[in-house]
Amino acid sequence: MSNFQILYQDSQSPARAGLLTTAHGQVETPAFMPVGTAGAVKGITPQQLRETGSSIILANTYHLMLRPGVETIEKLGGLGKFMSWSGPILTDSGGYQVFSLNQLTKINDEGVEFASHIDGASVYLNAEIATDIQNRLGVDIIMCFDQCTAFGAKDNEVKKAVERTIRWANRSKKAHKNPSQMLFGIVQGGINPELRTLCATELVDIGFDGYALGGLSVGEGHENMIKTVKHTMQYLPPGKPHYLMGVGTPADIVAAVYAGIDMFDCVLPTRNGRNAFAFTENGPLRLRNNVHINDSRPIEDGCGCYCCRNFSRASLRHFFNSGEMLGPILVSIHNLTFYQRLMAKIRQALKEGKFCNLVKEFTIDN
Amino acid sequence: MSNFQILYQDSQSPARAGLLTTAHGQVETPAFMPVGTAGAVKGITPQQLRETGSSIILANTYHLMLRPGVETIEKLGGLGKFMSWSGPILTDSGGYQVFSLNQLTKINDEGVEFASHIDGASVYLNAEIATDIQNRLGVDIIMCFDQCTAFGAKDNEVKKAVERTIRWANRSKKAHKNPSQMLFGIVQGGINPELRTLCATELVDIGFDGYALGGLSVGEGHENMIKTVKHTMQYLPPGKPHYLMGVGTPADIVAAVYAGIDMFDCVLPTRNGRNAFAFTENGPLRLRNNVHINDSRPIEDGCGCYCCRNFSRASLRHFFNSGEMLGPILVSIHNLTFYQRLMAKIRQALKEGKFCNLVKEFTIDN
Repeated sequence: MSNFQILYQDSQSPARAGLLTTAHGQVETPAFMPVGTAGAVKGITPQQLRETGSSIILANTYHLMLRPGVETIEKLGGLGKFMSWSGPILTDSGGYQVFSLNQLTKINDEGVEFASHIDGASVYLNAEIATDIQNRLGVDIIMCFDQCTAFGAKDNEVKKAVERTIRWANRSKKAHKNPSQMLFGIVQGGINPELRTLCATELVDIGFDGYALGGLSVGEGHENMIKTVKHTMQYLPPGKPHYLMGVGTPADIVAAVYAGIDMFDCVLPTRNGRNAFAFTENGPLRLRNNVHINDSRPIEDGCGCYCCRNFSRASLRHFFNSGEMLGPILVSIHNLTFYQRLMAKIRQALKEGKFCNLVKEFTIDN
Repeated sequence: MSNFQILYQDSQSPARAGLLTTAHGQVETPAFMPVGTAGAVKGITPQQLRETGSSIILANTYHLMLRPGVETIEKLGGLGKFMSWSGPILTDSGGYQVFSLNQLTKINDEGVEFASHIDGASVYLNAEIATDIQNRLGVDIIMCFDQCTAFGAKDNEVKKAVERTIRWANRSKKAHKNPSQMLFGIVQGGINPELRTLCATELVDIGFDGYALGGLSVGEGHENMIKTVKHTMQYLPPGKPHYLMGVGTPADIVAAVYAGIDMFDCVLPTRNGRNAFAFTENGPLRLRNNVHINDSRPIEDGCGCYCCRNFSRASLRHFFNSGEMLGPILVSIHNLTFYQRLMAKIRQALKEGKFCNLVKEFTIDN
């Protein structure tokens, strides 16, 4: 039996609603995964996180291997227990963080030696180590170790990264020893269609439980991103889950679902929440602004989140201006609730065969 | 009918358990009030605060008058609504903050002109203004405007402050216009017994709904503090609530209840919580320490708080070491729960006539 079922296929696009079954529970797709980089979604307790409607979260191998270390998490019963999250967890492999957070000291086909962003200590990571760590963290979905390139990288650099990503995907699959976990491949290739085709085709040949698109939302812009997603989706098996990594805005998400994506993760709702930026259906609110000083309305009328049920814009503005932690906490709760409500709305529209109307609302070029 | 009833009087000491009835609900005494200086208990939502067992909280006139200003809070329906706390609130008058946070620019019998700690702007506060602001904040218990002296101040300085505090108490009572609020007088006088006697006697002559002891826990030490409390209590009416401001450690609280105190406020549980210091019955835990690195135990076995039900010492250590907000949030929840459990234990012991045993546990000189 497959651990991914497509329940509703849109008749006018590759969009679909499905159900992903993991060792720690089921996930309705399209799904948004809040980011718990270091074992905590910033500012939110697991109980508050559950109340936002989140069912699966993301954590980062890179951060967790440096601190507190996989041995500690293993001794304490795995990442879910460590962070008190009983639902499904997906970990990224560390590839992206190694390339984005570190001054590289050495990279070759074998792996990457880098300086820890915490204390500068030399650390080594390769496909086998990244897979072993993820196996031991006890999460539900793990990712192949990959090489990400920056937007604007030259084609020969991107090609080299794609070839390495394919070899490392092979090695990740061989190293994978925890049968209760799904292993996803990561398609790289920047915004170069041929390289995306090459990477996708080769990964599908190797065969994975799901396929992610990495190396996007790194500066290429909405149009390039969606173009690349649409192109790549042609080469991925429709029956497997499709995950667009690190994306994105509500408009990005709707457009990507329209192209056939099932899973997303992004720091936007929490990072923006900590910075007084609230998402609403009528566009963002910047809660530090003077206009909110005596505004008794919640962030969003009708929103059922704890923040909107209990706090006015005026109070939230005051909390941010006074440096009270409650501001970041409450707006993170609202933003995650907003994102999960968007995902529920997308799933409902797919179920009712009305997804195209939703796409039009977001003024995406069909 | 009095709004304060003594339900259990200890036979061997002035200690008692009672019930304080306010416009926003009842408070079992002895009671501990978490500090919500600027309209938020730091790091804690009102829902989490309620779950710690807290029934009444404290906020500060000084901070709220500067930001967001009384007009804003009034327009939004009062402080309780502004901060989403439906229970009782007590506000301090601003006297203590004016003297502790500011470079004074001018002080005389009329009032105090001071520089805002936020932007240096010149602000004026006196008995009438402090009372008017508190009337308009719509809280349940308000405090007279007082003058606090530092520990070590000379007797003639302390005497001047006591005389001023008495005059300002008179003016505060005259200015008090909100009959749904109780007004408490504040006894000053440092650790000088004669001055404490003078201040207490004069305030009782004026007549207040309750009496606070201010100017303690400012460096004089446990013994001097308790000696001063015991001395002063002789001059306060037993039938009125007694509030020891800004106190204190668990041992301070038990000793002060033993002397007849009914109410406390202190930043210790939240401030220490934010700094990885957890209270337990077996003494404090410093959660950044290496000893906790693989410790799967909660802060305190058997504690029913959200933190102890869900997180190990190892996880908490990791959150603090990684700068995750969840560390301060969770340990603040635990520490407030610890304090409220202590208060519940004190009330239960008083009810059962076993309070002396509890006092002995805390190794206080009887």
